[in-house]
Amino acid sequence: MSTTSKRNRLSLDARREQLVRLGTDIFAQRPFEEISIEDIAAAAGVSKGLLYHYFPSKRDFYVEVVRQASAQMERMTATDPELPPRARLERGVEQYLDYVAGHARGYATVLRAGIGADPEVLALVEAARARMGDRILAGMQLVGPEPPAVLRLAVRGWVGFAEAAALDWLEHGGLGREELGALLVRTLRGALRAAADIDPAVGLEATAAAEAVA
Amino acid sequence: MSTTSKRNRLSLDARREQLVRLGTDIFAQRPFEEISIEDIAAAAGVSKGLLYHYFPSKRDFYVEVVRQASAQMERMTATDPELPPRARLERGVEQYLDYVAGHARGYATVLRAGIGADPEVLALVEAARARMGDRILAGMQLVGPEPPAVLRLAVRGWVGFAEAAALDWLEHGGLGREELGALLVRTLRGALRAAADIDPAVGLEATAAAEAVA
Repeated sequence: MSTTSKRNRLSLDARREQLVRLGTDIFAQRPFEEISIEDIAAAAGVSKGLLYHYFPSKRDFYVEVVRQASAQMERMTATDPELPPRARLERGVEQYLDYVAGHARGYATVLRAGIGADPEVLALVEAARARMGDRILAGMQLVGPEPPAVLRLAVRGWVGFAEAAALDWLEHGGLGREELGALLVRTLRGALRAAADIDPAVGLEATAAAEAVA
Repeated sequence: MSTTSKRNRLSLDARREQLVRLGTDIFAQRPFEEISIEDIAAAAGVSKGLLYHYFPSKRDFYVEVVRQASAQMERMTATDPELPPRARLERGVEQYLDYVAGHARGYATVLRAGIGADPEVLALVEAARARMGDRILAGMQLVGPEPPAVLRLAVRGWVGFAEAAALDWLEHGGLGREELGALLVRTLRGALRAAADIDPAVGLEATAAAEAVA
């Protein structure tokens, strides 16, 4: 690739990324169905033709918005694998709530302002949730690649707990970020202990996981 | 109203309800965007004109599907207010999982097969979640109409836990219904205890709530 075409390519990518960032704001403010390609082009100050050059359809644009928001959250909540399990969990929850608070509109876009029934969007969001659960299990350094069902359900349920509590908190507040973080950490501990109580076959593994973050 | 018009009215309502029930199946199988009014009319064996007679648009039809599925779940998970708090919680969770298992497609329709960004649909689903949380708080017989924020977030988070765990369980199984119910009940207890630990000002209230369901 020549230097010139490389530079052009980079500026095209930057423009594309700029459009996607703008999309996060647009889809967070109004439902997908109500927004036209014309609206997006007007908000971006570009022609419809240019928008179609980057994204074949409004849906493709939306999928890209969700993908980037989700990747950004993942980058911003990554934790140092050298940290001991409890500190790593606490740090991860702290970074998660920093992200949620700092990107309220983007977070809501990913989780509920979208075309939830679209298989690609659903798959993106579900994959992000699964990775969040996997990271938590891996962070406990005790669980193999195929965790027992009760442990999987405890962690997957907790990801739903974190999302629901974070969205309620964004909307209604009433609690400091640190207190909410503590509620998330302690509830995970409670869910892991519950898993240990329920299935004696995985009791030791789950108890160890709960103790690791206690 | 004459007897004749009353009978006609009832049969109209019954037909309308039948269409809505059919809608639950249709929207659970394919995304909203891909389904046309023609598809719905064909599946119901009625004319497009008749469908429009009941529902002005596909969106109105969808909103009605979500409303009925949500009302049905609420009816089926109602518990006897005479029961003591712990038994009432356990019974409620049992009925919830019965509903989820018996109406897997309808449940998925309400929670994720829809047009999530539609304000009316979102409001319906959020209201159902809020009522679920309110019922849980009321069932503990200890919390006033304006619960402390930490308690509200613990219960709202737990509704998210229950949804996420139930959807994962429907898809991947791996645990008996009773064990999943026990995981939900114990995790709520853990979340309430966490709330009590975090905010000493509501500690007594939350501790009492946790003990009530212990």
